[in-house]
Amino acid sequence: MDAAGRCGRVALVGAGPGDPELLTLRAARLIGAAQAVVYDHLVDPRVLEMVPVTARRVYVGKQSKRHSLPQSGINALLVTLAREGLAVVRLKGGDPFMFGRGGEEAEHLVENGVPFEVVPGVTSAAGAASYAGIPLTHRDHAQSCVFVTGHLRDDSCALDWPALARPRQTLVVYMGLGQIEEIARQLIAHGMPGDTPAAAVERATTPAQRVVCASVATIAAEVSRLGVLPPALIVIGTVVALREALVTGMGAAHAEFSLLRPVPQGAELQPG
Amino acid sequence: MDAAGRCGRVALVGAGPGDPELLTLRAARLIGAAQAVVYDHLVDPRVLEMVPVTARRVYVGKQSKRHSLPQSGINALLVTLAREGLAVVRLKGGDPFMFGRGGEEAEHLVENGVPFEVVPGVTSAAGAASYAGIPLTHRDHAQSCVFVTGHLRDDSCALDWPALARPRQTLVVYMGLGQIEEIARQLIAHGMPGDTPAAAVERATTPAQRVVCASVATIAAEVSRLGVLPPALIVIGTVVALREALVTGMGAAHAEFSLLRPVPQGAELQPG
Repeated sequence: MDAAGRCGRVALVGAGPGDPELLTLRAARLIGAAQAVVYDHLVDPRVLEMVPVTARRVYVGKQSKRHSLPQSGINALLVTLAREGLAVVRLKGGDPFMFGRGGEEAEHLVENGVPFEVVPGVTSAAGAASYAGIPLTHRDHAQSCVFVTGHLRDDSCALDWPALARPRQTLVVYMGLGQIEEIARQLIAHGMPGDTPAAAVERATTPAQRVVCASVATIAAEVSRLGVLPPALIVIGTVVALREALVTGMGAAHAEFSLLRPVPQGAELQPG
Repeated sequence: MDAAGRCGRVALVGAGPGDPELLTLRAARLIGAAQAVVYDHLVDPRVLEMVPVTARRVYVGKQSKRHSLPQSGINALLVTLAREGLAVVRLKGGDPFMFGRGGEEAEHLVENGVPFEVVPGVTSAAGAASYAGIPLTHRDHAQSCVFVTGHLRDDSCALDWPALARPRQTLVVYMGLGQIEEIARQLIAHGMPGDTPAAAVERATTPAQRVVCASVATIAAEVSRLGVLPPALIVIGTVVALREALVTGMGAAHAEFSLLRPVPQGAELQPG
């Protein structure tokens, strides 16, 4: 409680895919007024520069298999900070309700009587798609889009392979880099053609974005050969083939008026 | 071309789900500097207030079955405006690469040599989920999320029912209101339990947001009884059941410091 005995509040805020310009107006406003910020590994340093110097900052990590604080500890921390009367911003990469465990944190806040709001963000798949020139849906290619995580609670990778291998959809795997060989093998075993286009997008929407294009049969080897590191998204589907043409138009525009220059085709391996 | 013979440029910009505060910083900046804005039915009037008074505004519609301008006409218009040397913003509800036909417009711009960029937006599903208190994924409920459209090129509704009916995923149907009876019938016919929670979110993230909760067996009747109108998203999956608890905490926070008050449970039918 603050001096007047009031409980603070928590905003579960999506920080978007990386580029600070992809913050929402509401996220930027809440960050600029925060008294405490609890943030993940995936939040861009340039976003953290927007936090007031007087605010408390708590890093709670979440690199793959190296959690600085377990989820239960994060939940408890949010309640503790709110009970000190603070305006708390819980900053999460992407969108808080898409593989962000925002639901679990929200449930814990409800159980403890802490008022909160949820501010959606540009999910990493949308950011990667736009900046890499890969439409997630397209009437000639994919009439649906499936988002899955390769990083499950029990560290297994027991996904619904028959559903994921079906045609005319775009599959986006979050946090799937460590499992990419198994994912590709299972998709092909369940009927996906091996020549289905696939891309890995490393550090999407940041100046260090790298896009590696291959097929579902070859993407694991390419990712390994080129040393792609997390955070990276895997995009699988025929829409990936549209990138080659689209980046030719995007290059010109971005060079002229964007903060970011996308990596030109044929120079896929250098940070752009 | 402008007076110096330069071609203009086009930004395909996601305007987010409705609430102007959910625009990205980059979208707001581009809108504020636009010389021409081409916009859809789904773009909120409050977003249009950010367009400079000197800019040309072209409404290109897209209400279901009542396109003001066919897609080919929109494609041609973007090229024409850019060739006049203008900084063109093509404003689309949600995200341009998620059921937004941004891919088709980008292809046409490439074919005509018009430079462009793509600015991702908060997709409507993420906006609806956050403002309605429905996590799209949750480790105890759904390890994947599927986005489909109920509005297909040939007006059929030939979706991949066996894949969509599978458990442990969240299904979001964009533009599915007109087909909701058929969608629910097919899901149940393909094995989805009739008591699977389902919600319709009308005018998500706007002050007129309405959330109707039911089951997949009853959602079509409820939507009809209550007169839910487009734009609306359908969310199906056990995560919908989390809403009842989550809105109790969100109500307090939103009342205190948000522009929007979510509809409290038990008063689902009034705009909130």
